[in-house]
Amino acid sequence: MYPKSIEVLIDKFRLLPGVGEKTAERYALLISELDEVEVRGFAQALVDVKEKIKVCEVCGNLSEDDRCDICRDENRNHDQILVVQSAKEIIAMEKTKEFHGVYHVLHGLISTSKGVMPDDLNIDKLVDRAMNAKEVILATNTTIDGETTAMYLSKLLNAKCPNVTVSRIAHGLPTGGSLDYADEMTLMHALTDRRIIK
Amino acid sequence: MYPKSIEVLIDKFRLLPGVGEKTAERYALLISELDEVEVRGFAQALVDVKEKIKVCEVCGNLSEDDRCDICRDENRNHDQILVVQSAKEIIAMEKTKEFHGVYHVLHGLISTSKGVMPDDLNIDKLVDRAMNAKEVILATNTTIDGETTAMYLSKLLNAKCPNVTVSRIAHGLPTGGSLDYADEMTLMHALTDRRIIK
Repeated sequence: MYPKSIEVLIDKFRLLPGVGEKTAERYALLISELDEVEVRGFAQALVDVKEKIKVCEVCGNLSEDDRCDICRDENRNHDQILVVQSAKEIIAMEKTKEFHGVYHVLHGLISTSKGVMPDDLNIDKLVDRAMNAKEVILATNTTIDGETTAMYLSKLLNAKCPNVTVSRIAHGLPTGGSLDYADEMTLMHALTDRRIIK
Repeated sequence: MYPKSIEVLIDKFRLLPGVGEKTAERYALLISELDEVEVRGFAQALVDVKEKIKVCEVCGNLSEDDRCDICRDENRNHDQILVVQSAKEIIAMEKTKEFHGVYHVLHGLISTSKGVMPDDLNIDKLVDRAMNAKEVILATNTTIDGETTAMYLSKLLNAKCPNVTVSRIAHGLPTGGSLDYADEMTLMHALTDRRIIK
């Protein structure tokens, strides 16, 4: 019912995660109201991301260079590798400013339901890197697929890289979490992983 | 913390209504994962909207031609003009398939708080059109600005176009609306605008 070019743009916006008909409509109408320079800048930014962004050849992070900023940083501890599902988690972790090692991006999780097998993930390179590292911290999500992947990786790394320590990020109640709203698995983990207070 | 081109794209997505940092981040990361043809199509769609979409010279609706599809449609009743705030409301109204007249888009509402005055809106053309029409239906939103605009237009049209009937869309409880959740103004309108059932 909209003019053709707006309908086309609405369809494009629907490619974005979580964007339905109504939201895509609002986005497209806003674009028709922005000034031309702004819209051309937007279009250019889209193309730029596609042209400039590649995957770091070491860790799989997003980067405009062959190696990402973190992998090139001499001040970071290259003996400690934190394994995440995607580049997004690196940003979340970096915001804590608590981790000074390097990362490894799997680009997915092992998932029987989605048919994602270990061979589909960035795992071979992780094994190579782990050979010369001191610790690999498995920081995949605490979902079923995340746990499956962590378990698979811990077995693989313990078998192939005998000198590396494999660890898993802690499970428990989130900060501000309340016992009566927590699910049973979270409570169980919070109990079994309890810390002694001296 | 993301590579430059992704940060730029995140900023662009934040131009969209209701899109905050996290959402813009998710959108930009999705773009980096789409294939290049898809992204170029997206960029082209943005530019196309800007290049092709203009405002209908008669009613102010969005259109790729000088006159919009509705204004060019001989089968519609050009004596009945429904006045809306923006082109979006035309789509909503067209979906009901109940209205067979034509539209007039104000491109905003009179708003003292936002400093929008009658001169800023597409009102002069409405007066010209109303001279030769039978009815003008004021279908601005039932918000304060919408009511102010409707009141202003009804006075103006009644004074300048003595032959036209000016009407306002009905106020009342929405379909499925429940009395105890309705606000006082809605209830008041639902009561005063009650219909006699024969």
